[in-house]
Amino acid sequence: MKHYTSIHDIDDINSWIADAKALKQAPLQDVTLGKDKTIGLLFFNSSLRTRLSTQKAALNLGMNPIVMNVSGDAWGIEFGDGTVMDGNTAEHIKEAAAVVSQYCDIIAVRAFPTLTDKTKDESEQVLKSFVTYASVPIVNMESATGHPLQGLTDALTISEHAKVAKPKVVLSWAPHVKTLPHAVANSFVQAMQKMDVEFVITHPEGYDLNPEITGNTPIIYNQEEAFANADFVYTKNWCSYSDYGKILSEDPNWMITKEKLGDAKFMHCLPVRRNVVVEDAVLDSDSSLVIQQANNRTYAAQLVLKKLLENL
Amino acid sequence: MKHYTSIHDIDDINSWIADAKALKQAPLQDVTLGKDKTIGLLFFNSSLRTRLSTQKAALNLGMNPIVMNVSGDAWGIEFGDGTVMDGNTAEHIKEAAAVVSQYCDIIAVRAFPTLTDKTKDESEQVLKSFVTYASVPIVNMESATGHPLQGLTDALTISEHAKVAKPKVVLSWAPHVKTLPHAVANSFVQAMQKMDVEFVITHPEGYDLNPEITGNTPIIYNQEEAFANADFVYTKNWCSYSDYGKILSEDPNWMITKEKLGDAKFMHCLPVRRNVVVEDAVLDSDSSLVIQQANNRTYAAQLVLKKLLENL
Amino acid sequence: MKHYTSIHDIDDINSWIADAKALKQAPLQDVTLGKDKTIGLLFFNSSLRTRLSTQKAALNLGMNPIVMNVSGDAWGIEFGDGTVMDGNTAEHIKEAAAVVSQYCDIIAVRAFPTLTDKTKDESEQVLKSFVTYASVPIVNMESATGHPLQGLTDALTISEHAKVAKPKVVLSWAPHVKTLPHAVANSFVQAMQKMDVEFVITHPEGYDLNPEITGNTPIIYNQEEAFANADFVYTKNWCSYSDYGKILSEDPNWMITKEKLGDAKFMHCLPVRRNVVVEDAVLDSDSSLVIQQANNRTYAAQLVLKKLLENL
Repeated sequence: MKHYTSIHDIDDINSWIADAKALKQAPLQDVTLGKDKTIGLLFFNSSLRTRLSTQKAALNLGMNPIVMNVSGDAWGIEFGDGTVMDGNTAEHIKEAAAVVSQYCDIIAVRAFPTLTDKTKDESEQVLKSFVTYASVPIVNMESATGHPLQGLTDALTISEHAKVAKPKVVLSWAPHVKTLPHAVANSFVQAMQKMDVEFVITHPEGYDLNPEITGNTPIIYNQEEAFANADFVYTKNWCSYSDYGKILSEDPNWMITKEKLGDAKFMHCLPVRRNVVVEDAVLDSDSSLVIQQANNRTYAAQLVLKKLLENL
Repeated sequence: MKHYTSIHDIDDINSWIADAKALKQAPLQDVTLGKDKTIGLLFFNSSLRTRLSTQKAALNLGMNPIVMNVSGDAWGIEFGDGTVMDGNTAEHIKEAAAVVSQYCDIIAVRAFPTLTDKTKDESEQVLKSFVTYASVPIVNMESATGHPLQGLTDALTISEHAKVAKPKVVLSWAPHVKTLPHAVANSFVQAMQKMDVEFVITHPEGYDLNPEITGNTPIIYNQEEAFANADFVYTKNWCSYSDYGKILSEDPNWMITKEKLGDAKFMHCLPVRRNVVVEDAVLDSDSSLVIQQANNRTYAAQLVLKKLLENL
Repeated sequence: MKHYTSIHDIDDINSWIADAKALKQAPLQDVTLGKDKTIGLLFFNSSLRTRLSTQKAALNLGMNPIVMNVSGDAWGIEFGDGTVMDGNTAEHIKEAAAVVSQYCDIIAVRAFPTLTDKTKDESEQVLKSFVTYASVPIVNMESATGHPLQGLTDALTISEHAKVAKPKVVLSWAPHVKTLPHAVANSFVQAMQKMDVEFVITHPEGYDLNPEITGNTPIIYNQEEAFANADFVYTKNWCSYSDYGKILSEDPNWMITKEKLGDAKFMHCLPVRRNVVVEDAVLDSDSSLVIQQANNRTYAAQLVLKKLLENL
């Protein structure tokens, strides 16, 4: 593995899950592996879990994390090819990525989509530019269309909490007041497709994810029907993909409640808006796995960094 | 001690002062105590001394500091119970505090008061929410009503510079152009009440601090009278407590001058506005202890972190 | 050397270049020198290379870097002497510098010029205030009139890539859309004046740098003439010095092209605006040394920090 940009970079999800569990048992087992190595965490967007858990993962490997809010700490980066840079951007990604590669052994990047320009978002311009122009491994800390550190975390969490050999996992859309990306949902879908689970997706009509990602995964437009006998309900809002970037529904009937959930475990990548996406009664109960998920972010990131370090 | 949120968490101030002095003599004596441990410094507000000295203290103990400006680096946090989060806040403190506890062995928090909503400020909503929902020790890096790292620092500084067994210490209000919190004054009052000093407070009428905090401490509305035979003059502006958040006076006659100070030592938590709160002639003289105080911030923080680490 | 504020702090540039090359060969040779030592990086302005390379340099020496965006993380600093601080600044540099000296063994500062007040800029108020009021060594991470870490980097890069004993080096102005400082150009001029090179400066009339800095260095107003037989073309935009802060020309004929460059190597401190300052064809070719320059920032900074640490 040269980079970790998508769930497709995982060759064997079951062995990765086993490795992550082993790291979680003894997080400091590789504390000399990253000695005198530096990871640059570049944020084009806000972050809490990713910012902290990736730093923690790096520290567990003995690495030195250097964190930078690109726009706030530096200046606007240009991604266009051949641009006459007489506008608001002060440095081209060709230089920026190559330069940061001089100081960091690994570069991790967070860059959200525009949600207005589908073609641009699907081109993954920022992430792919780093892959192209950097000379060190790139880690995706959530890009326009994927959040593979979260997807790996979620696979690990489901594996830890499954009580049957082949659990039923439901990805459910839920309402939200803001236009949100598809990245977390996409990576979750891709992770579940690699696992031995019964996996279905449920959302209102008009909210179908990219069909190239969902593939053969069953889509059920009736949430109650989808939830029948579920072991895990993974919840996330996203905006319309076909009517790109639009909010087509804020229907509160899609909010997750304790009653709907039944015996299933509740999962969410966080941050979550209480009583909009899910009611308090779910999050405040033992049915919720959201804090365990957040904890697993450390070990997913640590496994990815470990594999990249071993390959340097 | 499970948390350090107030001066009341100090069981025996004289033994703490002795311990802090010992740390100051040999700051690296416990450099392995915090090995592979992480402290998260969460700032809801600006900071210079606290930001740097708490990092320095953590480094002296071998800890890894992770610093985060909550609003700038992440997003708005919701503290209300049962809120339908369809507004500007994106994550509830219940999740945020529990999540950060997954990555940090100690969490330190700075969150200033509104100075418009007395009930809310006195409830210490932010600090207490972290205590309630985090699963690790919480350190108060200045909250709505207290700044106990500063209070401990001040007690240490007075102990170091006292030339008599029971020095006279005066807390004096001074003018300022902005509405400032009571936190520093409150913690200083509480620290002095635990020490063997002759302690009086002086301020214009209408500026009485919370009477539950000042208790039996004498309050003198005449600054000159209060300063008579003082060994230490601790100066701080605060807004009115009774007429909450209001500036009732900017009377320059309350500014501290070399003449007023006499042989007393001048103390201030900093930042201080020169020639508004205190004249240059004081700060630029040997009567000023403000830099020594700032230095002691490291050892006060280090002692608190050491005690918390020993108790993990 | 007590501080590193200007190229004039370099006693013997050839021996410094040799030392920097040795560090580059074995960057971790002094990894215990900075153990338990802290460097504070204080940014009054944006930074990418300087921010990352100085941290990397400190880490290579085993130091703990603490980074702070002064305005964003703290508040406005007052530099005026005797000011009645009833305005927007909350802390005086006298306190700020002395206080930061309590927590950091070395302080590095970036503070750009106003480009509107020549007298103030030339007084180097911010940098000199730190030198005056701090009690630890100060490193200039780009001040109003100089960028000596860059100048040392550039000298090192030229030394590495020179193919003749006394190469011809041209400093060329190039167009830009914004008003830019003279700092990089000044330090480059001062560095070249110390080296055994044939050095000329070229720019449109009206763009003469401070004559006290350029001294006897030949100035040629015809770019083509200046470039004849050049080995290195160092490019940089700056605003007018005589008509202080003004943009007198955006003439695209001064942009650097592959054709103009010929066999010379292209150098720039970055960030660079593509197709405004220099065309893509130059930056995307082997003639460009900009990434190698960026890499050398680490070793220039590391040499400076090493010398300061050895002198503590």
